[in-house]
Amino acid sequence: MHMIVTGGAGFLGQQCIARLLQAESFALAPEAAQPIRALTAFDVVEGDYQHPKLRYVVGDIADPHQVSALFRDDTAAIIHLAAVVSGTAEANFDLGMRVNLDGIRNLLQAARAQAKPIRLLFASSIAVFGGELPEVVRDETTPTPQGSYGIQKYIGEQLVQDYSRKGFIDGRSVRIPTVVVRPGKPNGAASGFASNIIREPLAGRRVVLPVDPATAMWVASPRAVVTMLMHALSLAPELWGWNRAINLPGLTVTMHEEIAALAKVAGQEPLSLIEQRPDPSILRLVNTWASRFDTARALAMGFTADDDVEAIVRAYVEDHPEAIHKL
Amino acid sequence: MHMIVTGGAGFLGQQCIARLLQAESFALAPEAAQPIRALTAFDVVEGDYQHPKLRYVVGDIADPHQVSALFRDDTAAIIHLAAVVSGTAEANFDLGMRVNLDGIRNLLQAARAQAKPIRLLFASSIAVFGGELPEVVRDETTPTPQGSYGIQKYIGEQLVQDYSRKGFIDGRSVRIPTVVVRPGKPNGAASGFASNIIREPLAGRRVVLPVDPATAMWVASPRAVVTMLMHALSLAPELWGWNRAINLPGLTVTMHEEIAALAKVAGQEPLSLIEQRPDPSILRLVNTWASRFDTARALAMGFTADDDVEAIVRAYVEDHPEAIHKL
Repeated sequence: MHMIVTGGAGFLGQQCIARLLQAESFALAPEAAQPIRALTAFDVVEGDYQHPKLRYVVGDIADPHQVSALFRDDTAAIIHLAAVVSGTAEANFDLGMRVNLDGIRNLLQAARAQAKPIRLLFASSIAVFGGELPEVVRDETTPTPQGSYGIQKYIGEQLVQDYSRKGFIDGRSVRIPTVVVRPGKPNGAASGFASNIIREPLAGRRVVLPVDPATAMWVASPRAVVTMLMHALSLAPELWGWNRAINLPGLTVTMHEEIAALAKVAGQEPLSLIEQRPDPSILRLVNTWASRFDTARALAMGFTADDDVEAIVRAYVEDHPEAIHKL
Repeated sequence: MHMIVTGGAGFLGQQCIARLLQAESFALAPEAAQPIRALTAFDVVEGDYQHPKLRYVVGDIADPHQVSALFRDDTAAIIHLAAVVSGTAEANFDLGMRVNLDGIRNLLQAARAQAKPIRLLFASSIAVFGGELPEVVRDETTPTPQGSYGIQKYIGEQLVQDYSRKGFIDGRSVRIPTVVVRPGKPNGAASGFASNIIREPLAGRRVVLPVDPATAMWVASPRAVVTMLMHALSLAPELWGWNRAINLPGLTVTMHEEIAALAKVAGQEPLSLIEQRPDPSILRLVNTWASRFDTARALAMGFTADDDVEAIVRAYVEDHPEAIHKL
């Protein structure tokens, strides 16, 4: 079979692609692993990861023709990760609408037009929750997105839901926790500081913590997220039933706990590179985010979170030796 | 000022337009009534109602250029009623997406592009609720639309919410109860029977009741809905606050109670024209609808429902003498 990963040059996309191609096959139904003959990574740039079965296509997801052209007769599954992140979607509203809303519409329409049914995994976000929330967020909690990114993701979920109900595709949406530690450079995500305070000191660079250290977030490591994405893609439609959106398991972690885990893994020295300087505009946004979830449904479906925050930091150090400052 | 009513040739549109032009002015802020200089009715056909200040524009709301062309320098408010109804949106998915989703996007973009802030009232629907619901639906209840119409309306609400939060427009969405008695011919709305069983016997025509007479629905008369639409348009943004969507007051009425009200108003004779013949496909859909609401927030904001179902039937007879069979 052929698979498509949108946002395939991003860090989650690259890791999903590596995981899929290293496994060489994937089971879209229990005990029915199919060989992966080809994989198309669609993004605005090419990624670093290379494999004989991998083809990069650089383009614009808001262009329906480019999206249609990604499909082959044997396309069976899509992982839709392409998005502009929260801070960018807020600063550039039209770009966010193009990529985050037109993008999924184009993908859904193109998938629907295929002769064979397409399984589609949509990377949604816990950013669909915000504002006045219950102490613990559940799958039944009403999403009330506070920013354009969350609105666009939530609309994407509604479309995935309806296209699945109509039988146009076999879709599922997973609300991904804040990913910590996000590798690479700081990006436009408003939640970026939760990664920055680990990654930057480990690289020997100074970093600002713009929120109170007691600030808690709902986090998962890239490893855990990629494992959960693979699991979400593999689950038979019967296991989802009517509701095709789910909150993914994570850990409730304060920035203070992150810093303590950093010290356990790398000693006290990197801590001197963290400067606490509250930024009211980020504080205002972060205070509307959900940090405690009851993900009973996801756990029952076999999704699993990281063990603890220290394991998250250790995994980052193991996976990114090139990004660690030699102490 | 200039106002735009989309879906202006429909029965609610015609009644809104008549109400506005008869009043000659409208207050978008308390004690600040402004004269209505002109009103544009946009729809796929022209309506019957005529007035020197009224101009019909026939066109396609999915065409952004046609939508932009509706605006004038003095446009201050829009009532967005244009939609394909539930049964049609389910039968013709692409048409529903075009009219119900592209339509509001075009309108929001065009409104945002104006120099002066535009007030926009979006006619949403209680069809955003469905499936497994609490006994009583509240504003906080999570919408779980069961059909494409409800999905499209709910997405429209999300966009109105975000455009309002960003300050692009001053929007508000009202979830309209099932309108009873809808005048004219039976249409593609799956809820149409609730009107048909009053209107058709009053016209001397046979009608089928496709559900159990004990079936309850959340209903409001056209008069009450038009009054609530005018009220929703007039309320200052401060009275809405963050949440720009609201469930409108209505009455919980069983089909049995409707038939009893018909008998009170028009005698026993019309009842012989009602044939009970359950239709499993309609039953399946209707059983997922919400019929009991707690609309405390809307009542506190000054929205009001009809007195009772008999008053609804009497109002229809008064408003549509041409549609009553002379007994």
